[in-house]
Amino acid sequence: MIRLHHLNQSRSLRTLWLLEELGQPYEIISHQRDAKTHLAPDSLKAVHPLGKSPVIEMDGELYAESGAITELLIERFAPDSLRPAVDSADYGHYLQWINFAESSLMLPLLLELFTNKAGVGDNDFLKGYIAQEKHKLLSYLNDKVAGKSFIVGNKLSGADFMLSFDLIMLAKRGALEDYANIKQYALQLASLDSYQRTMRLEANHDKSI
Amino acid sequence: MIRLHHLNQSRSLRTLWLLEELGQPYEIISHQRDAKTHLAPDSLKAVHPLGKSPVIEMDGELYAESGAITELLIERFAPDSLRPAVDSADYGHYLQWINFAESSLMLPLLLELFTNKAGVGDNDFLKGYIAQEKHKLLSYLNDKVAGKSFIVGNKLSGADFMLSFDLIMLAKRGALEDYANIKQYALQLASLDSYQRTMRLEANHDKSI
Repeated sequence: MIRLHHLNQSRSLRTLWLLEELGQPYEIISHQRDAKTHLAPDSLKAVHPLGKSPVIEMDGELYAESGAITELLIERFAPDSLRPAVDSADYGHYLQWINFAESSLMLPLLLELFTNKAGVGDNDFLKGYIAQEKHKLLSYLNDKVAGKSFIVGNKLSGADFMLSFDLIMLAKRGALEDYANIKQYALQLASLDSYQRTMRLEANHDKSI
Repeated sequence: MIRLHHLNQSRSLRTLWLLEELGQPYEIISHQRDAKTHLAPDSLKAVHPLGKSPVIEMDGELYAESGAITELLIERFAPDSLRPAVDSADYGHYLQWINFAESSLMLPLLLELFTNKAGVGDNDFLKGYIAQEKHKLLSYLNDKVAGKSFIVGNKLSGADFMLSFDLIMLAKRGALEDYANIKQYALQLASLDSYQRTMRLEANHDKSI
């Protein structure tokens, strides 16, 4: 049995969706963000020293980091359906987009979040860097999803689960308006049955709404 | 033949070191940071739309993101020596540390870099968050490398190549003083022949020094 330590409004959404798609038995342990600070609660620190979510328990081991969990669950339960063959050219692209979602694209999104929270969102250097970086990254992604339902090989893969959380953050900020292909891609992901079940589960486990 | 688009003082150090360890034939294409802004030069944008480094060319394909490149090169050239078996418990830990290096640990380091560059490094909220987050992450890493030469299974793996760049950033800021096990681990990595060859190559390709 897999146990998912799930935090509302977090990267754990990626893992929740992946688990819904995999159809393996799993259990959700629900954690709630602090209503005032929006930070993760201490209950997560009791699970794993990083105090973050997602964390999964599987075969007596604990694993953190959503990118690692995505790759690991797919390796274990869906290597033939949710990732390209290891010896294909697409395998490298699969890894690239998994990392793009949490490294390249997440950086300006988190810089924006933290500088706004700190009240320094009007700093010229930061504002300029964030805007320029976001535009570069979103233009690239927009080109790559033109006419496609999925980012790698036009087939659902771990890379789509990873990108989905970025797209939700971006959509909340109204930041997808200029990127029609990304909007189309996000809508296509959101139309999948497993995605819709996931959003209902997330809502059920989010006490802030 | 593998071609590495290498930028001085960047995550490309991870890939350079991995290529030195793999012993596969490869070529370095050298790019230089802007002397004033320290940003990546336009020459990288001509290589890949993300305009970053590392980027590798292999079998007619381009791949970005240092985490993806690390996993891909190891899958292709050293699956039996530089990563745990896919069906072992350590495989999940291997993936976790690869992602930890570029996701969890990189976030406070980059927040610190960018807020200092923007002149808002004395903001109370940011200063507090960065210090707390760094301490949590480094304490965790410090515990995990106690008495070990390598982070996963006490055997050199892709996770060490990924962490090495974080350790270099941290050491430059004098941020490892309170973490004796991490210092010991960093020194052990730095003592490897392939690491030392890499640092000489980096120096030869860095026109700023």
